[in-house]
Amino acid sequence: MKKVVLLRHGESVWNRENRFTGWTDVDLTEKGVREALRAGELLKKEGFLFGKAFTSYLKRAVKTLNGVLDKLDQDWIPVEKDWRLNEKHYGSLQGLNKSETAQQYGDEQVLIWRRSYDIAPPALTEADPRHPMHDIRYSGVAPMQLPATESLKDTIARILPYWSATILPSLKNHNQILVVAHGNSLRGIIKHLKHISDEEIVHLNLPTGIPYVFEFDYNLNPVNDYFLGDPEEIRQLMEAVANQAKQRT
Amino acid sequence: MKKVVLLRHGESVWNRENRFTGWTDVDLTEKGVREALRAGELLKKEGFLFGKAFTSYLKRAVKTLNGVLDKLDQDWIPVEKDWRLNEKHYGSLQGLNKSETAQQYGDEQVLIWRRSYDIAPPALTEADPRHPMHDIRYSGVAPMQLPATESLKDTIARILPYWSATILPSLKNHNQILVVAHGNSLRGIIKHLKHISDEEIVHLNLPTGIPYVFEFDYNLNPVNDYFLGDPEEIRQLMEAVANQAKQRT
Repeated sequence: MKKVVLLRHGESVWNRENRFTGWTDVDLTEKGVREALRAGELLKKEGFLFGKAFTSYLKRAVKTLNGVLDKLDQDWIPVEKDWRLNEKHYGSLQGLNKSETAQQYGDEQVLIWRRSYDIAPPALTEADPRHPMHDIRYSGVAPMQLPATESLKDTIARILPYWSATILPSLKNHNQILVVAHGNSLRGIIKHLKHISDEEIVHLNLPTGIPYVFEFDYNLNPVNDYFLGDPEEIRQLMEAVANQAKQRT
Repeated sequence: MKKVVLLRHGESVWNRENRFTGWTDVDLTEKGVREALRAGELLKKEGFLFGKAFTSYLKRAVKTLNGVLDKLDQDWIPVEKDWRLNEKHYGSLQGLNKSETAQQYGDEQVLIWRRSYDIAPPALTEADPRHPMHDIRYSGVAPMQLPATESLKDTIARILPYWSATILPSLKNHNQILVVAHGNSLRGIIKHLKHISDEEIVHLNLPTGIPYVFEFDYNLNPVNDYFLGDPEEIRQLMEAVANQAKQRT
């Protein structure tokens, strides 16, 4: 059985500070580093040996991946980084505190930006230094592809071609693949694999640092999926993420 | 001016324990991690922005690279790992304490294995679990290419084609390239670039954690080279490496 493991990065500094992060390149907290190592331990216990790993251009994902691979003694495997695995772009909200934003725009509006499927936050202007066109790491990307804001729908629209053209086909050459990314880019992959509706996908709250395993048959059709770890603990973690989302809007 | 920075990994656990390491995948010590971060700081101060990085299949190099990139805020750049950047293979000496080996075989013999250009230590047998043919990470390499031991000459013979076919041409697409590897694989590259003789190259003692910059013109010919950091400190470090080598044989 071929396997793809999806992993959401550990806690970042702005998760903790309750700020909209999106494409801002913030670091992991110490807790986030521990979450990465714990994910590595869970994968090690199950005997995973990855042929290849994929991650985003953002250090909270790259460093989670580095921690996992080191715990697995698989520092040597090839890693491909791609901007299309980045988190949803949060437009001009990036950097703002979520509570303050709610005071300014109202709870309802912020809830729409955070939890609607196809409504994006206000876009960054091209003059804004936060616009990805000013960041050298995206200089290889066609300017019209670079988002100034994104709805979840937009995020999914750029992640799925990368999944279909690059990640999934790599299962032909490797039995086990690891993808370390973000809440919303992983939602896109999971929505696709599990045929989740536009309405339902916004309620999927992926816990951080818990490997999510998808099994594929030899025709690369998904046949099974499960989290690694203690089911009761995972249930509590998913509930906590959902509650956090409620409180913070 | 195009630049390639060569960096030798920081101190490993077996450096400290004075054991022959070669292809054994031992970790960095805490000092080794600090050396990596310090190299990152030196590169940051000079404003380096790498387009791509290369490293070996060995975690002491991979983790040195990860530390450097993180210090530079360049976690996102593409990294290519290749076995041809590995340290010289030390054959059946791998894992042995250097002093004990000298007692067993005599100082002179060990000095020959360590410092001659073209005499390799005793080879591993194919049955030996240390033989790279038993290590999954080399399963993509043609068995006849995998060494059971190497002289410095052998190490250089496998690193140079990789340098010429892969690393050097990548300067066409990028202005600055980082190569994090090992004392002997880097000796190969430096020997080639500086036309150092077989006799002289064994006396080149590259300090760990000090970036060594090579500048190239736009035809990719090397035109200049220098270490980053305080010249007097670098001189002392190179002397220390040379003395260490003498004491330890």
